[in-house]
Amino acid sequence: MKDQKPGEFDLISSIRRQKQPLPKSILQSIGDDCATIDSSLLHRLVISTDLLVEDVHFRRAWTSPHLLGMKSALVNLSDLAAMGANPVACLLSLGLPRTDTAEFFDNFISGFLRTCREAGMPLIGGDLSTARQVCISVTAMGTVPEGEPLYRSTAREGDSVLIIGDLGYSRYGLNFLESHSLPGLSDVKVLTELELGTDDPEVIKAVGRHLLPEVHLESAQWLRREGMANAMIDVSDGLGNDLMHILEESHVAAEIDLGQLPGLAGVGEEERIDLALNGGEDYALLFTASAIQLAQLTDRYPGHLPPWKKIGEITGGAPELVLNLRGMRSIYSRKGYDHFQ
Amino acid sequence: MKDQKPGEFDLISSIRRQKQPLPKSILQSIGDDCATIDSSLLHRLVISTDLLVEDVHFRRAWTSPHLLGMKSALVNLSDLAAMGANPVACLLSLGLPRTDTAEFFDNFISGFLRTCREAGMPLIGGDLSTARQVCISVTAMGTVPEGEPLYRSTAREGDSVLIIGDLGYSRYGLNFLESHSLPGLSDVKVLTELELGTDDPEVIKAVGRHLLPEVHLESAQWLRREGMANAMIDVSDGLGNDLMHILEESHVAAEIDLGQLPGLAGVGEEERIDLALNGGEDYALLFTASAIQLAQLTDRYPGHLPPWKKIGEITGGAPELVLNLRGMRSIYSRKGYDHFQ
Repeated sequence: MKDQKPGEFDLISSIRRQKQPLPKSILQSIGDDCATIDSSLLHRLVISTDLLVEDVHFRRAWTSPHLLGMKSALVNLSDLAAMGANPVACLLSLGLPRTDTAEFFDNFISGFLRTCREAGMPLIGGDLSTARQVCISVTAMGTVPEGEPLYRSTAREGDSVLIIGDLGYSRYGLNFLESHSLPGLSDVKVLTELELGTDDPEVIKAVGRHLLPEVHLESAQWLRREGMANAMIDVSDGLGNDLMHILEESHVAAEIDLGQLPGLAGVGEEERIDLALNGGEDYALLFTASAIQLAQLTDRYPGHLPPWKKIGEITGGAPELVLNLRGMRSIYSRKGYDHFQ
Repeated sequence: MKDQKPGEFDLISSIRRQKQPLPKSILQSIGDDCATIDSSLLHRLVISTDLLVEDVHFRRAWTSPHLLGMKSALVNLSDLAAMGANPVACLLSLGLPRTDTAEFFDNFISGFLRTCREAGMPLIGGDLSTARQVCISVTAMGTVPEGEPLYRSTAREGDSVLIIGDLGYSRYGLNFLESHSLPGLSDVKVLTELELGTDDPEVIKAVGRHLLPEVHLESAQWLRREGMANAMIDVSDGLGNDLMHILEESHVAAEIDLGQLPGLAGVGEEERIDLALNGGEDYALLFTASAIQLAQLTDRYPGHLPPWKKIGEITGGAPELVLNLRGMRSIYSRKGYDHFQ
């Protein structure tokens, strides 16, 4: 779309022209009051929504509309992953400033639909409005074809606490972007061509993680399908905050070994631990497994998937997170990001 | 919630404390990465999302947070009505300025949940963020327990064009609010106690319609269940725009009689017609019915529901809307609200 002043319906038409493969269960996609899903083809339907607001969740100077579109789809896929679900479809509402509407929209949508296509999660509806800040609301639906989703509330005393993915990189990358004035990021090859003014591989990895998180959908689906986890969550608000969600919903406590956290290599211990516990936007997969599950995981976890790592144990008692650093124990208190405090 | 600086989790807790009756099909509500619906209990699942942005869709000076909460749920219920669906559940994402967060949030949520309870559409998930403007994203899910939803794409040549509800009041009420400086509106009894500085019943009705639209859920469900409509839409962008949606999706044309439009009584003909065609936010129900359906409708439409009215006919040919005023024919050209033009 290259018009200077596209209308709302032009914007919607441009989405409809980008053909998306639709599964048989999607009976009505974009173009009616509601999308329609034949839910008799599904079993458990899971649904989640995320709101991304300019200058709160992202700055346009530090990313590109294309990457932002990809990330908007990815963070919602991570919520489906956290349940062990398969993506079904999504809805997208966009609030856009009147300036640059067409250019921003075209690039955003091409990134968003690219990730949707790769994940098999077609866009089937949404809404558009003007707004002073870019404001992105995605609703993602997934299905669990047999058995139950993996909830936060089902961790048990004696479980191991396990993690897939790394911690703290996204926040470290954000800190780097905040403190460096960078040229405009290119649309797709940014992660290899980025002129970051450094060849430090940890910085390059960190900025990449921040702009395009790794989402562990396949690992999560495997864990659920094979019955290898009791409780699961994706780490979006910092490990401390998100493990506390499991503890509170499951009415248990936990102790983790800070020496085992999969954090950054190139920074001091204190910074590494703080970033891992309180960083946010990691989209690592945090789950608990019984002794039997842990033994099977050791035997059977597929070698082509990102490895899991044990970082602690679920214990009895009131929800509380004990941090163990070389035998020194302390109680975690929430420091993760809270929008309103 | 009366704290001065509530955190994100305080805000979510305050929603969880407000008990909502959950149907058996909702397996997991607020408190996990995704809500979970047992979709084997449903049949066709319909899903829709609407984005409401401060100073675009509403001004805080002209409404109250409680009424805004009710309206946010109502406009999404109207999308479910347009499919003839029964509400199942909804998700709510809110972007809120840092000032007045707790007071705005409490009043908004109490209005939103009030309408959700009345409609049997529990809130089962969502997201919160700060934002410069209040920004409200609702995703509503509904089900059609047997048969098919009523789509926009199924109008046929020879159908009558019918309407339930009135047209133009909401825009007339908005115009009144825009041109009058009003004291703060009270929370619930506003529609009877409003100090509008006029006793004109059409003005009072119009402001009421704008702040709290009438949604024709029961009529819509009856029409679908009894097979009394071929195509249906809710009038949210003006009758002209929304009838054009039916014509374009169904590949038919239509002629309507401007003398039959259910518009305002107290204004001149030209203004009455313009408000009815291009006003917006009417949430009337616009549908088409064959001669057989029309005859049955005349016999069997329940007396306790708001009456239907015939306003035109579906004709053959390319999508085009002919306006007939006492035999003078003209072609409708889009004037309804477009956010980006």
